[in-house]
Amino acid sequence: MNHRMIGKLLGFLLLLECMFLFPSVIVSALYHEETAMRAVFLTMVIAAALGGALWLAGRKAERHFYAREGMLVTALGWIVLSAVGALPFVIAGEIPSYVDALFEVISGFTTTGASILTAVEPMSKGLLFWRSFTHWLGGMGILVFLLAIVPMGGKGGGYSVHLLRAESPGPSVSKLVPKMRQTAAILYGIYIALTVINVLFLLAGGMPLFDSLCTAFGTAGTGGFGIKNDSMASYSPYIQTVCTVFMALFGVNFSVYFLILLRKFKQVLHNEELLLYVGIMLSAIAVITWNVSSLFSTVGEALHHAAFAVSSVMTTTGFATEDFNLWPELSRTILVVLMVCGASAGSTGGGIKCARLLLLAKSLRARMRQMLHPRSVNLVRVDGRAVGEEILQGVNTYMSAYCAIAVVSFLLLSLDSLSMETNLTGMLACLNNIGPGLALVGPTGNYSCFTALSKIVLMVDMLVGRLEIFPILILLSPRTWRKAG
Amino acid sequence: MNHRMIGKLLGFLLLLECMFLFPSVIVSALYHEETAMRAVFLTMVIAAALGGALWLAGRKAERHFYAREGMLVTALGWIVLSAVGALPFVIAGEIPSYVDALFEVISGFTTTGASILTAVEPMSKGLLFWRSFTHWLGGMGILVFLLAIVPMGGKGGGYSVHLLRAESPGPSVSKLVPKMRQTAAILYGIYIALTVINVLFLLAGGMPLFDSLCTAFGTAGTGGFGIKNDSMASYSPYIQTVCTVFMALFGVNFSVYFLILLRKFKQVLHNEELLLYVGIMLSAIAVITWNVSSLFSTVGEALHHAAFAVSSVMTTTGFATEDFNLWPELSRTILVVLMVCGASAGSTGGGIKCARLLLLAKSLRARMRQMLHPRSVNLVRVDGRAVGEEILQGVNTYMSAYCAIAVVSFLLLSLDSLSMETNLTGMLACLNNIGPGLALVGPTGNYSCFTALSKIVLMVDMLVGRLEIFPILILLSPRTWRKAG
Repeated sequence: MNHRMIGKLLGFLLLLECMFLFPSVIVSALYHEETAMRAVFLTMVIAAALGGALWLAGRKAERHFYAREGMLVTALGWIVLSAVGALPFVIAGEIPSYVDALFEVISGFTTTGASILTAVEPMSKGLLFWRSFTHWLGGMGILVFLLAIVPMGGKGGGYSVHLLRAESPGPSVSKLVPKMRQTAAILYGIYIALTVINVLFLLAGGMPLFDSLCTAFGTAGTGGFGIKNDSMASYSPYIQTVCTVFMALFGVNFSVYFLILLRKFKQVLHNEELLLYVGIMLSAIAVITWNVSSLFSTVGEALHHAAFAVSSVMTTTGFATEDFNLWPELSRTILVVLMVCGASAGSTGGGIKCARLLLLAKSLRARMRQMLHPRSVNLVRVDGRAVGEEILQGVNTYMSAYCAIAVVSFLLLSLDSLSMETNLTGMLACLNNIGPGLALVGPTGNYSCFTALSKIVLMVDMLVGRLEIFPILILLSPRTWRKAG
Repeated sequence: MNHRMIGKLLGFLLLLECMFLFPSVIVSALYHEETAMRAVFLTMVIAAALGGALWLAGRKAERHFYAREGMLVTALGWIVLSAVGALPFVIAGEIPSYVDALFEVISGFTTTGASILTAVEPMSKGLLFWRSFTHWLGGMGILVFLLAIVPMGGKGGGYSVHLLRAESPGPSVSKLVPKMRQTAAILYGIYIALTVINVLFLLAGGMPLFDSLCTAFGTAGTGGFGIKNDSMASYSPYIQTVCTVFMALFGVNFSVYFLILLRKFKQVLHNEELLLYVGIMLSAIAVITWNVSSLFSTVGEALHHAAFAVSSVMTTTGFATEDFNLWPELSRTILVVLMVCGASAGSTGGGIKCARLLLLAKSLRARMRQMLHPRSVNLVRVDGRAVGEEILQGVNTYMSAYCAIAVVSFLLLSLDSLSMETNLTGMLACLNNIGPGLALVGPTGNYSCFTALSKIVLMVDMLVGRLEIFPILILLSPRTWRKAG
């Protein structure tokens, strides 16, 4: 295990975090929030000191860097960033309990959007800004950012591939271009451009700049932290529609946008994951619109809210215009299924991802054919290309681990004696990085009802969901530490 | 597709069913139940006529018989047997609706034990006997019985292997001896012997013969139909303990009993599935005993009821001494997890089966090692032997199909507007062949609250659960019928 290199990279990340905290200082200053400003500034100092120390200690690190190191840096990096990122809330006294603040920040970075706050409006603007900004940083991944800006040395992009693989969602990393650093830069370029367009559309609807920025951060990262107690309900239908559209756009695999930039429109239209994603989304909207139409005065209104809810839940954002916990059982069940289903691989959304569902469905079909015609050859093809056995196995391993973690979390949460629906949907909402579940943790509820133990379980679930299980499993595996000794 | 051979085998099965209905005629006669006796007798005539016709039509069938035919015979066989087996209830007027009667009989044959009856005590003894006897027949499998008694011709046991594979639960068929017919005969021998011992133990506790037989049928098949409205609650603690022990025994892989007969005790003690099964069961009993201890006057009593509930749910039997729906959330959640977990492969119990969980856990571990050390070789071993890639793939395919069916059923049930807990646990209780779920379908509830559509969905789930998915999927696949044309 290359401890120094891990330390060096963690140092890098903390220095980046120090930089990313700076805009919140400005926001606090503009709104004359002394306490918040001082809290954020103090955290910047702590991050810089810690980061600098780690960076110096790791200067003479050796070069070898394997998958194991990549997984560990990713897992530790996210935990350290959250541990430090939670400080402003505690120092400013806006979230007195450190466990709660940590929950809030992990929920931010992992783009979950689950909150322990019973009301967000009393919070200072500076800290609300930081809270929403964590979504934006976590959405595309802070290690990907690191890759994009820092020349990492190492031959053949050794570091980069392991880091990108550990932090990017989906069954396989799609290198857009041969060089990892360029891939990371292109991804961030598209991400920034889409976020800016989103802000412009929101400003055009008369939304104040502060609200537009925070809302766009929550949308881009498919996070879901709002800055109003009623989430998006009090905004105009135009603003809500902008959110519906942009949530859906940020749930698309970013390589699709790269194909569009390259004008390869035919490939875009034949992208099977995109078709599945759009297909599921439109079907769900249609069924829910029909199912809830009696609750609204016009079908148009039902469609508006159904589309918002589906786009929000399927992309695992978690914004709400309506309390869908009160909708009929069919709609609620569809939303729970969409929570698990999730957005596309290579997007900022969470969940199992359409690409994995596609691979699972296709390998199921291939296996059934094999069963009927044992001598036939049944390859699994996506977008016309055969999928390697290793990727299929990886998907299966992922699913087993996913189910195992879901079951263990569900059992641990049941110690709290809340209802089974609260526990189940709360666990699913955290594991899939959505935010709101149903019952007590529905759109109008929050996670303050859970005990500290349950909050810790849910924090692990959020990290497991965002980092796609294996970095966290490897961090928690005794084997990793035994060999490291 | 070999239609004639399929017809011939279905004819065989109906003739067998005719024979198996006979004991119910005798029971009805002994209790002077004219209507029931006539209804059963009429059904026997129908079964004999239909069976004879199919048998005659299939006389000149060709010999070729592949996996596809094996799957189809199994799926169709179970449906035809249920369709005819439901007639006595309708003819006698004891369950007027045919859909309800079909639900009850499918629930019987698949050893689910889910009932649409609000009270069982008013039923005639003859039909209660038939209802419980379907559990016993379905437990080990009626095609396995056919294999055991009828010489099937065909070279190399061609038919037999496909039929046994389609009907036997678990990731792989363990041939006890090289010949399929002997394997089937040994399995039924052990099954009959254990059932007889069970009856003797019940009689020793002063249970009447009729009750003992019906209870033993429900236990042996891990079915769970009781003959009292309160299931097993009103019987003595001794009788309940006999049930606890025998339910657990019938959830063990029958090849373990074969090893015991061969005096290979060392192999028994090192059987990993057995260890996992016993380990999960004892841990669950310990935790639930601790969790419910405040509800009972002594710890011994808590242990007694916890052991009964765990044994009943994990083996997917479904008998109840206590309304575990009213237990604390932790206990309820553990029971839901055990429902899915299920008993051992090669037993009469349902669920995913411990053998599959073992394989999933082991391949997850192997894959994680592979991830950390890409050049290492990581074989999955069970009981010291390497497990073939094909079996591992089969388990993964099974799990994908299982999840897909669970999700689709859950969505269809949500059309009914019952609570999510009722829908979810009802679906799981049927798919895993348990019987009672929680909430409305808990131990004191029943399935009469569902609409006809939902009952049909649950019937398909029960068949899918008992036949381990693929026979039913292949029956429902349009491809099967397109090629058959």
